[in-house]
Amino acid sequence: MTAAGLYKQIQNKKSFLCVGLDTDIGKIPRHLHLLESPVLEFNKKIIDATHDLAIAYKPNLAFYEARGADGWNDLKKTVEYIRSVAPEVFLIADAKRGDIGNTGAMYAKAFFEEMDFDAITLSPYMGKDTVTPFLEYDGKWVILLGLTSNPGAEDFQFLPTGSGPERLFEEVIRQGAEWGGPDQVMFVAGATRAGLISDIRRIIPKHFLLVPGIGAQGGSLKEVVDAGLNEQCGLIINASRSILYAGSDEAFDQTARIQALALQEEMASLLS
Amino acid sequence: MTAAGLYKQIQNKKSFLCVGLDTDIGKIPRHLHLLESPVLEFNKKIIDATHDLAIAYKPNLAFYEARGADGWNDLKKTVEYIRSVAPEVFLIADAKRGDIGNTGAMYAKAFFEEMDFDAITLSPYMGKDTVTPFLEYDGKWVILLGLTSNPGAEDFQFLPTGSGPERLFEEVIRQGAEWGGPDQVMFVAGATRAGLISDIRRIIPKHFLLVPGIGAQGGSLKEVVDAGLNEQCGLIINASRSILYAGSDEAFDQTARIQALALQEEMASLLS
Repeated sequence: MTAAGLYKQIQNKKSFLCVGLDTDIGKIPRHLHLLESPVLEFNKKIIDATHDLAIAYKPNLAFYEARGADGWNDLKKTVEYIRSVAPEVFLIADAKRGDIGNTGAMYAKAFFEEMDFDAITLSPYMGKDTVTPFLEYDGKWVILLGLTSNPGAEDFQFLPTGSGPERLFEEVIRQGAEWGGPDQVMFVAGATRAGLISDIRRIIPKHFLLVPGIGAQGGSLKEVVDAGLNEQCGLIINASRSILYAGSDEAFDQTARIQALALQEEMASLLS
Repeated sequence: MTAAGLYKQIQNKKSFLCVGLDTDIGKIPRHLHLLESPVLEFNKKIIDATHDLAIAYKPNLAFYEARGADGWNDLKKTVEYIRSVAPEVFLIADAKRGDIGNTGAMYAKAFFEEMDFDAITLSPYMGKDTVTPFLEYDGKWVILLGLTSNPGAEDFQFLPTGSGPERLFEEVIRQGAEWGGPDQVMFVAGATRAGLISDIRRIIPKHFLLVPGIGAQGGSLKEVVDAGLNEQCGLIINASRSILYAGSDEAFDQTARIQALALQEEMASLLS
């Protein structure tokens, strides 16, 4: 998918919402546990209820890997299901990997061939050669961790990296944008630090930002949009727990839809 | 396992060798492809041929994940096999993960409960709260990426992080050692930069270092030992490709043993 293709979907759906499929088997409604694949059934219901409102889905791999081969199968089937009911959506593997060349190539194979993801999140710590194997796939994306939404972001990401005012997250974003253009590379920029999204926009006016931290983590959608919107929207806003676990009874999918709809309507108004 | 327990194993085996199980299905001997689980059979043969010479095994998860649920099953069975034939060894999940709290907890569950690993490699970029869920497991270890052996290490790890001479990898190691003591935390320090291992030892005299880059990547064992050995050895040296793929015929396991034995004998001599 190109940035233009992504923007077209944003215009069509009047939304830049990503639903994070952080599906925790301990948190899904009880009645699903009677089924053979509770996590997969939960995901299908959430996808059915939200795919006209969301432009992207982002399964967090930890939640699947924690369940071994069963979880891996649920992930694969979730990807296939999304592709069958909403082939237009942007599919992000939230993997936060980062490994040397031949290993990176194995991961690229896992997520871009074994499963049909459009993008993968990567940690920048090991540098450019850990990212290049992923950039060799035409139409696929790398989403580099830039500024994360967790408290620990302050441990290293804000360290000054030279004589000027630049901090590590800005250096990562500046270099990362040299590794790949706005059709290949995005950056994670946490909504809990909306003020800093303006600083990031000065470095990369055109690249998309994937913004977690809205909802359960307390970030403000309007502040992020004020700071980060560009000519092609340039923002993908992720919400996970606030949508997935809004309800816990048999109508959980409709309760999830109400939450997603509220975000989509706010987005439609901010886009116009 | 404690650091003392690990050192005891090092003394018993006169070795601080870790065999990296980066098992690439495209590189293993052809005759194994006739079997039902070629990767698992390859691993078993390598383990049988080396477990008296190695104190640790380190499966690189990318190689297993690239094969989906089948790969995950091979990984799990490899861990179980190692536990059955060599329960004393230190078992490292080379995952290079790094994610926020609830996600980190899922990964800890995956690698420390779902599978019986002793340690997991983590990326430090997202900071302390991405590491703490792993430190809550008694007797389990976190191995933080400090200074990696790939060319891209120079992109960020060497950035100056303040007014003094300290570089990012040193700041990571200094802070990481505050998060957990020498019985909980180790650091990756690439053998291709042996000169810098002396700098690292000044910051953390007691913590173990996991050193990749010997063999295929060209690092020198003697230089690493000169720079990094401490009172309890303090080094785990990893070799992967140079052992795994030393031979390609039916006697590949014995060829692998010859390579492992050469390293172990050099280690025995350096330890004494």
